[in-house]
Amino acid sequence: MSFVHVSKTGEIATVTLSRGKVNALNEPMLREIRTSFQDLEKSDEVRAVILTGRGKFFSFGFDIPELLSYSKDDFIRYLTTFANFCSYLFLFPKPVIAALNGHTIAGGCMLANACDLRVMVSEKAKIALNEITFGASVFAGSVAILKFCVGSRNAETILYSGTMYSPDEAARLGLVDQIVPAENLMQAAEKAAVDFASKSAAAFSSIKGLLRGPIAEEMAKREQDSLHEFADIWYSEETWAKLQDIKIHS
Amino acid sequence: MSFVHVSKTGEIATVTLSRGKVNALNEPMLREIRTSFQDLEKSDEVRAVILTGRGKFFSFGFDIPELLSYSKDDFIRYLTTFANFCSYLFLFPKPVIAALNGHTIAGGCMLANACDLRVMVSEKAKIALNEITFGASVFAGSVAILKFCVGSRNAETILYSGTMYSPDEAARLGLVDQIVPAENLMQAAEKAAVDFASKSAAAFSSIKGLLRGPIAEEMAKREQDSLHEFADIWYSEETWAKLQDIKIHS
Amino acid sequence: MSFVHVSKTGEIATVTLSRGKVNALNEPMLREIRTSFQDLEKSDEVRAVILTGRGKFFSFGFDIPELLSYSKDDFIRYLTTFANFCSYLFLFPKPVIAALNGHTIAGGCMLANACDLRVMVSEKAKIALNEITFGASVFAGSVAILKFCVGSRNAETILYSGTMYSPDEAARLGLVDQIVPAENLMQAAEKAAVDFASKSAAAFSSIKGLLRGPIAEEMAKREQDSLHEFADIWYSEETWAKLQDIKIHS
Repeated sequence: MSFVHVSKTGEIATVTLSRGKVNALNEPMLREIRTSFQDLEKSDEVRAVILTGRGKFFSFGFDIPELLSYSKDDFIRYLTTFANFCSYLFLFPKPVIAALNGHTIAGGCMLANACDLRVMVSEKAKIALNEITFGASVFAGSVAILKFCVGSRNAETILYSGTMYSPDEAARLGLVDQIVPAENLMQAAEKAAVDFASKSAAAFSSIKGLLRGPIAEEMAKREQDSLHEFADIWYSEETWAKLQDIKIHS
Repeated sequence: MSFVHVSKTGEIATVTLSRGKVNALNEPMLREIRTSFQDLEKSDEVRAVILTGRGKFFSFGFDIPELLSYSKDDFIRYLTTFANFCSYLFLFPKPVIAALNGHTIAGGCMLANACDLRVMVSEKAKIALNEITFGASVFAGSVAILKFCVGSRNAETILYSGTMYSPDEAARLGLVDQIVPAENLMQAAEKAAVDFASKSAAAFSSIKGLLRGPIAEEMAKREQDSLHEFADIWYSEETWAKLQDIKIHS
Repeated sequence: MSFVHVSKTGEIATVTLSRGKVNALNEPMLREIRTSFQDLEKSDEVRAVILTGRGKFFSFGFDIPELLSYSKDDFIRYLTTFANFCSYLFLFPKPVIAALNGHTIAGGCMLANACDLRVMVSEKAKIALNEITFGASVFAGSVAILKFCVGSRNAETILYSGTMYSPDEAARLGLVDQIVPAENLMQAAEKAAVDFASKSAAAFSSIKGLLRGPIAEEMAKREQDSLHEFADIWYSEETWAKLQDIKIHS
């Protein structure tokens, strides 16, 4: 693994996104994240997972500069991989705690939203679904997951404005569950993970399925169409021009 | 147009309900509102719409005294026109800001709820879905839209009580998003409209569709049955007697 | 009737759970509750119902020690009876107010959630869906009803933690609507019932159907599978061992 680091302490596994300075998601990285989670799903020892990032970003989201070099077919395959992973993570049968160590942007926020709990650092990090600000749409699944987390009305507020929220603002909207100083982040995430892990695994997984299964079914019906609509807007003249201006300092 | 006034400033169009003293909705007026919005949907210049009312009411809702003179068939056609327009407005591909200049009652509140943002005057104006207080029901679509705005539990509170809410109470329930002094209403609505208009139109319309499309599909399945149930209750002895007492001073 | 007491004052009926010290639900008691509600549904006089408990518990939930002696088939029949009654109560065409006189636990909380309003005593009583703490799951219907009451995110918090909430904490989560001193409980419940009863019965029942019908349809699709999953977990070695430790002092 080059872009994802997995460690284990007792029943708790930690998956750390580690690619460049901003943990931007390209296709090889997505595949590594998926493989890591599939391994953790199968592991008998692991009872809870923490998902975090290295450095000042949890994740910048899609690696836009790199994606601009993909063919449209490759881009749609990338989107499909990403959307499928979000659905998989949303239904992951073990508890997943997002430890948001820094900026949590666009696709990064979608990953965080699919987890069971979001703990964020109290510092200057921002969290946003800011797709609309660079002319992009989102997917059916990411909208459904967002509505599940924060309710329909807050989902509109977040998506229509594309605001970069401070942790406090995000907590008021329900986008973040807990805020702690950076030095206590992993400790707080581990405490939550141990708490989850102390519960019956079968009961947890059954209850999670009952809460999230109906949403996932709805998502699945619309996902494919929404990915194509996403790609059409992405490749439109207006959006394509804006995407060129997005740089990643890595 | 006699009951609806449409004006444009730059990319922002304003639709003003203008019928009598209370902007009560009869069928010709509904058709005018629909035509106005259809024109604005097609217009290339218009990027956001403000919906407001003239005088002390945003809208009283249905013109009950006039509706009492309709035949049952005409009444059901009226209901269908109204419900279809609410669904159309809920899915309108451009941003719509409701500038609630005064009392926003029953059908008037349903129109407001279908918009993307509700700004209300801070003065004595009331907002209510008070149908239950005169023995009427509501429609499947208006219930689904209300749940979308305020969540299921608040939707129950609002519909079961039929309370005439002050703007502050309404804001606490999520029925109103912003409250401003009357003299600043249009300025606040325009600011919000300009903000929406500055975003990518294609991305906005796609995101709105993802947020609201699944709700609209559910609504459509139930709407027709609910309109007939509505009409049956409307023409029941108990409700019919109460409706006779409703006067409009115009 | 031996486990359920029904009284009437004017248009308001009161159903009091009365079995042992904790009103634990066995199958004969479930049948009595159902029969009581079916009678009240038919009664022309009764316009609103209060559901309460005798003593320090509203209800302990399932009578676990007794259920452990059921065969698996009998247990599944019991679950089906319970789940069907929850759905029936959720859609009951007249207003139902839960007057939570004391601890409201697991299955007891599911009954309360299916009502139209929850008034709880301000004293030491706790309210919880604590199934996960003894390794049990819940049902599709009870999850859907909980989401309807408190939203998806709070539903997760409540179910994943299994916390025994104080009335204040429960109110913040939306699990309880009103908190009053014990000596005012029945008065507060009656006031709410009289308020509901003063509204048009046909309009109330129609609006309740519009609000809750779509949820009930979704529930119905998943309920049977979820009951079998519930039973499988219930009879698993891990959960079965924990269930042996649960005692009821009666």
